[in-house]
Amino acid sequence: MVDRPGGNPRAAVVGTGLIGGSVLLRLHRRGLDVTGWDPDTATRAEGRARGIPFPDELADAVRDRDVVFLCGPLSSLPETLLTVAKHTGPDCVLTDVGSTKGGIAGFAAAHGLSDRFVPGHPMAGAERAGLTAAVPDLFDGAAWVLCPAATGIERFRTLAALVIDVFGARVVPMAPDAHDAAAALASHIPHLLAGSLAGAVADADLRDAVLGLAAGSFRDGTRVAGTPAVRTADMLLNNRDQVLAQLGRVTGLLDRLAAALRAGDAVALVGHYQRARELRLALLDRELPPVVRDFPLGGDSDDELAYLLSLGAAGGHLTGCRVAAGTVTYTGHLSTAPA
Amino acid sequence: MVDRPGGNPRAAVVGTGLIGGSVLLRLHRRGLDVTGWDPDTATRAEGRARGIPFPDELADAVRDRDVVFLCGPLSSLPETLLTVAKHTGPDCVLTDVGSTKGGIAGFAAAHGLSDRFVPGHPMAGAERAGLTAAVPDLFDGAAWVLCPAATGIERFRTLAALVIDVFGARVVPMAPDAHDAAAALASHIPHLLAGSLAGAVADADLRDAVLGLAAGSFRDGTRVAGTPAVRTADMLLNNRDQVLAQLGRVTGLLDRLAAALRAGDAVALVGHYQRARELRLALLDRELPPVVRDFPLGGDSDDELAYLLSLGAAGGHLTGCRVAAGTVTYTGHLSTAPA
Repeated sequence: MVDRPGGNPRAAVVGTGLIGGSVLLRLHRRGLDVTGWDPDTATRAEGRARGIPFPDELADAVRDRDVVFLCGPLSSLPETLLTVAKHTGPDCVLTDVGSTKGGIAGFAAAHGLSDRFVPGHPMAGAERAGLTAAVPDLFDGAAWVLCPAATGIERFRTLAALVIDVFGARVVPMAPDAHDAAAALASHIPHLLAGSLAGAVADADLRDAVLGLAAGSFRDGTRVAGTPAVRTADMLLNNRDQVLAQLGRVTGLLDRLAAALRAGDAVALVGHYQRARELRLALLDRELPPVVRDFPLGGDSDDELAYLLSLGAAGGHLTGCRVAAGTVTYTGHLSTAPA
Repeated sequence: MVDRPGGNPRAAVVGTGLIGGSVLLRLHRRGLDVTGWDPDTATRAEGRARGIPFPDELADAVRDRDVVFLCGPLSSLPETLLTVAKHTGPDCVLTDVGSTKGGIAGFAAAHGLSDRFVPGHPMAGAERAGLTAAVPDLFDGAAWVLCPAATGIERFRTLAALVIDVFGARVVPMAPDAHDAAAALASHIPHLLAGSLAGAVADADLRDAVLGLAAGSFRDGTRVAGTPAVRTADMLLNNRDQVLAQLGRVTGLLDRLAAALRAGDAVALVGHYQRARELRLALLDRELPPVVRDFPLGGDSDDELAYLLSLGAAGGHLTGCRVAAGTVTYTGHLSTAPA
């Protein structure tokens, strides 16, 4: 698509549920030439009713495209990736929006697709599902992980520019495994905790009394238990090892909190909560001033790749990616607060 | 205060932090004669600057009042209750806003104050603290627990009418112990889970990467970890037995979720999440049609008390309480959905 001077890329979105549908609607609203495809006939009809081409055959939806977003369920992604790769040319950039990255990245590498496929994960979602729930503003200001690799780093640049300029998201560059470890704590374990709280109340004698009292803390603490169950199970199973490894940190601290409570140890409880509160305040008060970095195109991209991966690992992100005159220019943001 | 025909009750608020300050500001905005008191000199000065009388001495703030809201920290409530009782007449209604009810109700009974003191708990709050963070709309639509008892049920009626009419809250009538068991699941355990998640990330190597990815699920799941640490510790310690008892349900289910994940058991995971999701949807879709109930004043109040306690235990609430012509008329709301 960087080879189409003066023109926007032709895009396709495969799988148009909540996330894919929101990707599709944003591309459409920004005036890009975009096609959609979904295995569900009614969804394709709904897409056409919105004025967007939705061929009946996947091959027809992706054939002449410059970039394809793979947005179906996690478990469908490997097969979809192979199918789309077969029906698109070698210059077509492929990316996905799945909530785990190690598995699909390894699969792409094993099938010789690492130079075309850039694993991705927009950190946005909702309990709702389907194209009817999709909204084009879903990604505004959201973190959108993209995994750069030495092979195909030019595809990363292309996608990073598109995600920033078209979707208004912050691009977080991360290695697939680093993403999966961080996402376990940032997203998957919150789903486990919400499921435990909501499920325990569902089966409690006190169920109705609890619903009658439920205020902010219970509503917030159970919100993602409203996510469709199959989607949550898929997500957890796809990141099983990291989720179980990181879960031990959380349950270990929960055990220590319960022990302090049982012992009536106010000093220990206050100490634990002060530490937890600092983290919460750090989340709300992050200051991430912009710093511009240039790297030469061509040649080896080791420095560029190291910069990108260290930025994401340190909690930073990109709000700019420009390629011009033999140079790529990133606008990176990194916390200035002490760790 | 029902003995002051044509006049609103004279109120006092003792302890004007976030909750007490919000109570005070609402009473003031609705034009009631209200005084405030706080042990903190600067807070009293801030209250006066807002045009509200804030005597330096607690006794002067409460002496001629018809109703007094006790809103200081949980651990200060027993002593404050005795002090305020000493400086007010036998017709003055006393209530509190503490997050646990069994302890203070037992203390009031042991000191012969059950006929004047109605334990209360508005289910509203925020991570912020202090009179500067107080807002008069904090209780609009919120559940506000009041504990009726056979002795002093007329005080319950007085307060229920005030809480509904002045604060716009839903009154949930509950016995103190029933409140504490339900509040453990509805509020205290969500604070434990949020503290565990935020605290575990605070100490993780991945801290910064997690902050960079944090989206809705992490923000929601850690929100109440931002509550001042002493307030959270106080709340948990005051409801220790119920919190530990109910926590077992939640950690038991968390263990089963982790075991299903470890075993790769998608069917079990989906089943657990479907049950959790039903609870979440029940929370969002509660339909509580109004039903009016009358009880005669005077005579024994056993039927009235039984009605009130069964309403709260079943997740219901009151949006009306009127005393006229020898009758008390409640507008109660109870779920029509199957349990």
